[in-house]
Amino acid sequence: MTIACRPARREDVAAIVRLLADDGLGAEREVVSDPPGEGYLAAFDEIAANPRALLAVAEDAAGRIVGTLQLTFIAGLSNHGAELALVSAVRIDSSLRGQGLGEQMMAWAMDEARARGCASMELLSHASREAAHRFYERLGFAKSHVGMKRTLD
Amino acid sequence: MTIACRPARREDVAAIVRLLADDGLGAEREVVSDPPGEGYLAAFDEIAANPRALLAVAEDAAGRIVGTLQLTFIAGLSNHGAELALVSAVRIDSSLRGQGLGEQMMAWAMDEARARGCASMELLSHASREAAHRFYERLGFAKSHVGMKRTLD
Repeated sequence: MTIACRPARREDVAAIVRLLADDGLGAEREVVSDPPGEGYLAAFDEIAANPRALLAVAEDAAGRIVGTLQLTFIAGLSNHGAELALVSAVRIDSSLRGQGLGEQMMAWAMDEARARGCASMELLSHASREAAHRFYERLGFAKSHVGMKRTLD
Repeated sequence: MTIACRPARREDVAAIVRLLADDGLGAEREVVSDPPGEGYLAAFDEIAANPRALLAVAEDAAGRIVGTLQLTFIAGLSNHGAELALVSAVRIDSSLRGQGLGEQMMAWAMDEARARGCASMELLSHASREAAHRFYERLGFAKSHVGMKRTLD
């Protein structure tokens, strides 16, 4: 199955939220509706206006949104000022997994990051997502770091 | 020992690069000089112009730069559009470790993130930095994720 990846448009937001919710860990925190809630649209507008963010979708041949991911480009002082790309919120339609869509989407994301001159790409993946870790290892990522989180109240 | 945290200024760049290099993993990749290399200054200018980035330093009572960290504020669609804060490049002068400077600096960073309305904070820490993991766990962070990286060529 071949997909086309491109930056997300505002009319994709409902489909993206559906993908975020279509997931063991995200199901309880997202609110799926069409049209999407104002919070999601406001977040989309902020991401779209940010030159260092790229929210992307993957479309199938019929124009249906079947995947999403987000890139954040971070200019650090380290490594002589090289930018790195953080990839997050990677989701594939659960009915279409195992068909190479994730590989195609991540290959596109890595090409986008290279085109900007990014020296590296990184991500946090929940410790319980062992299939995802193997997927990223096949794509050349190493589990070299721990990913730590806390809520802020 | 009490420190004051504040956004970095261009004249702090040489001191920040020294802190980044004063580190087991960073020593071989940074180039320390005063004035700093143009690549570092260009990266600083890009960070300073980015409303979603905050490069910070900690000063001691004599105005000496003794610590640094960087925050990146990421607006995702997830969690109803809440922003999260990624903290990276956390360094304390190696001669001053164990005196609570890191705790003060991270407390300041969490307050800055809360003031922006961030719902959570996250970081990647090299798997070998076990003392750092314990430090972040004391500050309420959980090792809930793996941190994966690859270079892009």
